[in-house]
Amino acid sequence: MGSSPVGGVFFTPIVSGAKMEKKLVKDIPKKRENISKWYISVIRKADLVDYAPVKGMMVIKPSGYAIWENIQKILDSKFKETGHQNAYFPLLIPESFLNKEAEHVEGFSPEVAWVTIGGSEELEERLAIRPTSESIICAMYSKWIMSWRDLPVLINQWANVLRWEKVTKPFLRTSEFLWQEGHTAHKDKKEAIEETLKIINIYKDFIENYLAIPVIMGQKSDKEKFAGADITYSVEALMPDGKALQAGTSHYLGDNFSKAFNIRFEDKDNKLKFVHQTSWGVSTRLIGGLVLTHGDDSGLIIPPEVAQFQTIIIPITRGDWKETILPMARDINKKLMNSGIRSYIDEREEYTPGWKFSEWEMRGVPLRIEIGPKDIEKKQVVLVSRVDREKRFVPVEKLEEETKKFLKDIQNQLFQKAKKFADENTHYTEDMKTFKEYMKEGRGFIKAPWCGDEKCEMKIKEETTATIRTVGDKAESGNKCIVCGKEAEYIPYFAKSY
Amino acid sequence: MGSSPVGGVFFTPIVSGAKMEKKLVKDIPKKRENISKWYISVIRKADLVDYAPVKGMMVIKPSGYAIWENIQKILDSKFKETGHQNAYFPLLIPESFLNKEAEHVEGFSPEVAWVTIGGSEELEERLAIRPTSESIICAMYSKWIMSWRDLPVLINQWANVLRWEKVTKPFLRTSEFLWQEGHTAHKDKKEAIEETLKIINIYKDFIENYLAIPVIMGQKSDKEKFAGADITYSVEALMPDGKALQAGTSHYLGDNFSKAFNIRFEDKDNKLKFVHQTSWGVSTRLIGGLVLTHGDDSGLIIPPEVAQFQTIIIPITRGDWKETILPMARDINKKLMNSGIRSYIDEREEYTPGWKFSEWEMRGVPLRIEIGPKDIEKKQVVLVSRVDREKRFVPVEKLEEETKKFLKDIQNQLFQKAKKFADENTHYTEDMKTFKEYMKEGRGFIKAPWCGDEKCEMKIKEETTATIRTVGDKAESGNKCIVCGKEAEYIPYFAKSY
Repeated sequence: MGSSPVGGVFFTPIVSGAKMEKKLVKDIPKKRENISKWYISVIRKADLVDYAPVKGMMVIKPSGYAIWENIQKILDSKFKETGHQNAYFPLLIPESFLNKEAEHVEGFSPEVAWVTIGGSEELEERLAIRPTSESIICAMYSKWIMSWRDLPVLINQWANVLRWEKVTKPFLRTSEFLWQEGHTAHKDKKEAIEETLKIINIYKDFIENYLAIPVIMGQKSDKEKFAGADITYSVEALMPDGKALQAGTSHYLGDNFSKAFNIRFEDKDNKLKFVHQTSWGVSTRLIGGLVLTHGDDSGLIIPPEVAQFQTIIIPITRGDWKETILPMARDINKKLMNSGIRSYIDEREEYTPGWKFSEWEMRGVPLRIEIGPKDIEKKQVVLVSRVDREKRFVPVEKLEEETKKFLKDIQNQLFQKAKKFADENTHYTEDMKTFKEYMKEGRGFIKAPWCGDEKCEMKIKEETTATIRTVGDKAESGNKCIVCGKEAEYIPYFAKSY
Repeated sequence: MGSSPVGGVFFTPIVSGAKMEKKLVKDIPKKRENISKWYISVIRKADLVDYAPVKGMMVIKPSGYAIWENIQKILDSKFKETGHQNAYFPLLIPESFLNKEAEHVEGFSPEVAWVTIGGSEELEERLAIRPTSESIICAMYSKWIMSWRDLPVLINQWANVLRWEKVTKPFLRTSEFLWQEGHTAHKDKKEAIEETLKIINIYKDFIENYLAIPVIMGQKSDKEKFAGADITYSVEALMPDGKALQAGTSHYLGDNFSKAFNIRFEDKDNKLKFVHQTSWGVSTRLIGGLVLTHGDDSGLIIPPEVAQFQTIIIPITRGDWKETILPMARDINKKLMNSGIRSYIDEREEYTPGWKFSEWEMRGVPLRIEIGPKDIEKKQVVLVSRVDREKRFVPVEKLEEETKKFLKDIQNQLFQKAKKFADENTHYTEDMKTFKEYMKEGRGFIKAPWCGDEKCEMKIKEETTATIRTVGDKAESGNKCIVCGKEAEYIPYFAKSY
């Protein structure tokens, strides 16, 4: 019933038959016309997510969670390869801990959900559900770190966090979300900065090469940096509506937290010193970025590297297909799985092949494999790309290598397409009027010289809604601030942000 | 410093040098004399866990979390092989949802932590931090399930849950813990019961064959079953102090929740029917069970199947060891890792080999590999079992197969040892006086005939502290209840529980 075993992978579409009738592609708003409606429509029809009965919270359904599992698997191995270990810290943080670092509490306390009753008793001190875990982790590090021998501490946590948001959108901004948060402690600034940069580069590499989303990478302005950090590095991706999505951040915390929490170590010279710290994270927001970047009017397109199913096999149900086509389809599915490809076969009888084509396009499986009577004769299969419906006829004996090649091509194609869009929508101007025109038409990244003064940054935000996404390169001599006309310090990337 | 790259695995011991001086084995209480103190001492000295600044909560440190990651990996693949997919449901549950199933709310509401403030506003309806997720998941299933085509729904979630506990002990009972919770929906009772049994058998297989802990498996009495279930199956392990640890449960929920949450489907006969449901879970408590079962007066012993490091290589630091022994040790480490063994090499210079022996015994690595000057000459290594210090001299060319064999032997040895203990401490009696004597001396599982009446069950608990762990086999004709002398229905396993 619904669930069918296929070479070790089972799959139950959690969509009712009744609902599927309404799930026709023509019901999706056009992406170009209303990307916001398109987004909500697609993530729900493709079964990634549902709204929870608590405001601002989401249920990540199996098809959505499978993407997160692939993200976790890849990133986790990259963290471990670079010396990090996972741990788990408590969900609840006493208010007094959150209050220890002044900027941190100011930044986060308006968004906190508070536990005030535990097991029918009023608590003496209310407990925050972690909006991020610096304060609880630093409290532990101050117990754990004594000597230079204990450093560096390189710990990551996969966890849920909660920020009480007013306006939410599944994956992109929700009150509860899933993420990883790394928290490291180092003997000095140099080593901590190296760590901060190492991680932001891991994020860039991962987002570009696995999620096929091009990003810019750079430092945040003081106004935009993390509450409690000295420096925040960020990777930012340009979405099809010309708005920037902050996709990952890596913070150099200096000794702000180690002073607040008294995390000191005895160095080789016998002196007590404060550690220098970093923290960094990416979240389920990445799934939202992936949907926005690659999807089209037929639904999702999931990059092969993180797709739950990389190939969907659809046997053409005609005549004696169960005796002829089905065995070959199963054989092909098994071959693909044995060669490491995540494949699935849709054997349902209650749906036509055409229906299945639409459904799996909606779900974003990057490669469809059709097997019909002619293909059996010719000992071949037809591979169809989800991106542009390019067809390749592949002899069965070359199945595995050709499928892998096609998947690789699709992965590249998705990245190149997104890169082209980002390049075409990255502008440079020194003129405020032009800046505003860009912001009115298509938006995008706008590079413009800036003096470094927060007042000018604020003025641009007020007049255009654009904020500094990264401060960009140092300005050259002669560059004038687009707002005040004074000598420019940087050429930031401005954009309206998600 | 501290962290050293070893063929792709890095490892930072998060123990200060200062603290390590105090970490000598002689400081551990003897396991036989005071298992409770021994337990706390060992899990902290072996760096599995630390107390959090919130009462009843723990921090799972990297060495502890690594065991959980291995447990997750193995169980997750077993769930997926049997058709389950992962998803994620919200942390917070509106009070009204928790209240829908009468027995469920009665069982859990005394243990709930409540969020009453979100952002800076008082909430209209307070929100429970999930103590378990039946109520929120059922609310979603009632939206998702329409037709027989949507069944079965086979979903699992890896998550944190919170139960406000008064008396806590790391891993064994904490307010917050990590677990997996499966929640499935089926077309009828038969299929749901099959699922319930399938899962409890997966738990038994996993706990016995991977954690090397023998368990009894059976049904709970009505008094002991899950709040809201029709039937609860449980696996229970006997700990060295003669107390039983409930290690995993699988519940047949009948249609209790589907009626409370109106989860109905249109069957093939066009009739609307309530689904039959199951839920099941194991938690980080398993780590506590593993420590209690296998550890000894030298510290932890972690079964090879779930150990972070299966082999610890200790080069004997003598003379020109860096030129002679170290290269060979690294080579051996690489060979082991390439053959799929989780290996680590302790290259620290500030500690003697003897110190390292003690430290890694404390940490419970099942197999130690010593490499000294003589071994280089003889092209061999010395493998030493953590269980009984059995030594095997292995020629380098047979390294991989002999190491795997030794690890397998250790895994079996641990299980057999625990099995022998459980068998020797499982008693049968029909006499209350003997029952009480068993409970005074060494406790254990006591099988005794029972009429099925909750009054008799309560009386045994009051007089002996023992509860029914599973109802056991059906009694034979002539068996009389140990309490009331009436015809017995079952021969339950009684024990004092953790």
